[in-house]
Amino acid sequence: MTIEKKGAGEILLAHGGGGLLSRRLIEEVFLNAFSNKYLAPLNDQAVLSVNRSRLAFTTDSYVVNPIFFPGGDIGRLSVCGTINDLAVGGARPLYLSASFIIEEGLAFDELGRVVKSMADTAREAGVEIVTGDTKVVERGKGDRLFITTAGIGVVDDSVDLSPSLIRPGDVIIVSGTIGDHGIAILTHREGIRMEAPVESDCAPLHSLAADMLKASGGGIRAMRDPTRGGLSSTLNEFAGSCMCAMVMDEDKIPVLETVRGACEILGFDPLYLANEGKLVAVVSPDAAPPVLEAMRRNPLGRDAAIIGAVEAKPGGKVLLETSIGNRRIIDMLSGEQLPRIC
Amino acid sequence: MTIEKKGAGEILLAHGGGGLLSRRLIEEVFLNAFSNKYLAPLNDQAVLSVNRSRLAFTTDSYVVNPIFFPGGDIGRLSVCGTINDLAVGGARPLYLSASFIIEEGLAFDELGRVVKSMADTAREAGVEIVTGDTKVVERGKGDRLFITTAGIGVVDDSVDLSPSLIRPGDVIIVSGTIGDHGIAILTHREGIRMEAPVESDCAPLHSLAADMLKASGGGIRAMRDPTRGGLSSTLNEFAGSCMCAMVMDEDKIPVLETVRGACEILGFDPLYLANEGKLVAVVSPDAAPPVLEAMRRNPLGRDAAIIGAVEAKPGGKVLLETSIGNRRIIDMLSGEQLPRIC
Repeated sequence: MTIEKKGAGEILLAHGGGGLLSRRLIEEVFLNAFSNKYLAPLNDQAVLSVNRSRLAFTTDSYVVNPIFFPGGDIGRLSVCGTINDLAVGGARPLYLSASFIIEEGLAFDELGRVVKSMADTAREAGVEIVTGDTKVVERGKGDRLFITTAGIGVVDDSVDLSPSLIRPGDVIIVSGTIGDHGIAILTHREGIRMEAPVESDCAPLHSLAADMLKASGGGIRAMRDPTRGGLSSTLNEFAGSCMCAMVMDEDKIPVLETVRGACEILGFDPLYLANEGKLVAVVSPDAAPPVLEAMRRNPLGRDAAIIGAVEAKPGGKVLLETSIGNRRIIDMLSGEQLPRIC
Repeated sequence: MTIEKKGAGEILLAHGGGGLLSRRLIEEVFLNAFSNKYLAPLNDQAVLSVNRSRLAFTTDSYVVNPIFFPGGDIGRLSVCGTINDLAVGGARPLYLSASFIIEEGLAFDELGRVVKSMADTAREAGVEIVTGDTKVVERGKGDRLFITTAGIGVVDDSVDLSPSLIRPGDVIIVSGTIGDHGIAILTHREGIRMEAPVESDCAPLHSLAADMLKASGGGIRAMRDPTRGGLSSTLNEFAGSCMCAMVMDEDKIPVLETVRGACEILGFDPLYLANEGKLVAVVSPDAAPPVLEAMRRNPLGRDAAIIGAVEAKPGGKVLLETSIGNRRIIDMLSGEQLPRIC
């Protein structure tokens, strides 16, 4: 409540945080104005029918600060992010656009490094950057470099993913350790020294998602990459769509020791930290073993784990079962935890 | 030369101006890194083959200052611009993405007005905004609102447009008065009072382009919307692709009296001013009469005019034949004339 009172008629940093205020902004401003069947499900990608093909289409802007960080940079992030939004929609990513808003004075060398990183990441993922744009704004009217990517992919006819398909008894799987990206950016930005610095997990997940779909026999209900707002916000979105309860087992959620340590010292909860190379899937009980096995065979899923299950009640809620057996409700991120994390 | 010496290793405002430095930035930084057959022609859209369909894909970022101006706003601009890049590629625009980078403190009301304007423009043009993203940056790290749109359209198999197809004897047509948008933004931004204020020409050109294609019998070689860098930069791009000379007749170029007057007082040349609701087409001599007639029947082409013709030499150059019969070379925009015009 405090946050909203502070600037009732103005956009706050928290409106970009991926949590509750982001959700309200989207619902109240964008969904109202742009209402259509593609946007309404609030997935991270729209699945369109064009000339009898199913196309996935997505976009994201990247404003991460700083633009270079351990494990990646804004360029790699902008390519991985859009690939991942396509991949978790069940699409095979094909083509990307890239649009640059540059603050006057950015060094050519730095732009060149970012662009090279984008090209390398696109090659690694087998996608092509086919169209783009560049704008330059005056000093003090931007912050070095913002990149917006959009992407197109093809969705096979057999793929049918939607959080509304989730039902009680389903299994919740995460593809690896959570919170790496958030802690990598935060510690690097704030100049916090760590014995073993945490690297961003920034990676393209298209091959992992494809392996999972192939192994699942149609048993994957929904996938999403838990970026801003973290695992807790993604599971809250799922819970809101299917009106079931998403119950996590605290002991089973993979978190790097260094990330856990940094969280304890800095007062963060890994459940709310951004990830850029992880996905969460909800799968049928039958599909869980083969999907998990397929994930663990992929280098990007080697730490995959079943972290919980779906229950009927309390509908629309996310619960965390703690080590000592208590259950507590995990809300969406409210307010802003870490601005400009992606 | 002066411009480049001023900040040899840094991005300058002029790198975003749509002229010579923009071109060099694209060729040296982006084309080198992202080399592929779709990007290489440097059209404003890529035409892709997906499951036997021809898809056009394009993106642009909008950083116009101010965000509201006579005749439009950043929202309408961002929708029209992407529709127009698809339309001049011969595509039927279908779906748009919209990504927002908001400076903390922007009024909700203003965001709401921009978003409503986008929705209205999309409806007017028969396209749907199907996916999007929102990021918020701290005060002083952005400038109120930047919008990046991307768009997908379908290109009929019969359409074959490319500046490389232009040949001597072809006819150059512009769809209406030039320079309106540039003067509208400039006079509004600088608080210059005019007896009859100039409005931006900002409009979606998909129906005009479709009417032209239908009437042309395949005689349209290339179309482009002369935005940043103006008519002169677009014709220089055409000349560079076909290695012919583009010869304009000064007396035939439509310019509003108010725009001409403002240019004389302020020292601008309408040939270099941005347009947001105009297109230039190069057509075969046979196709010119029916195409011109079709354009004039469309409200957005009622002032369409043949403004010149293509000659063999001097290859790669744009010439202006003045009222008194002299011919002078018209270069691409070099340096920055009007930053943040779109």
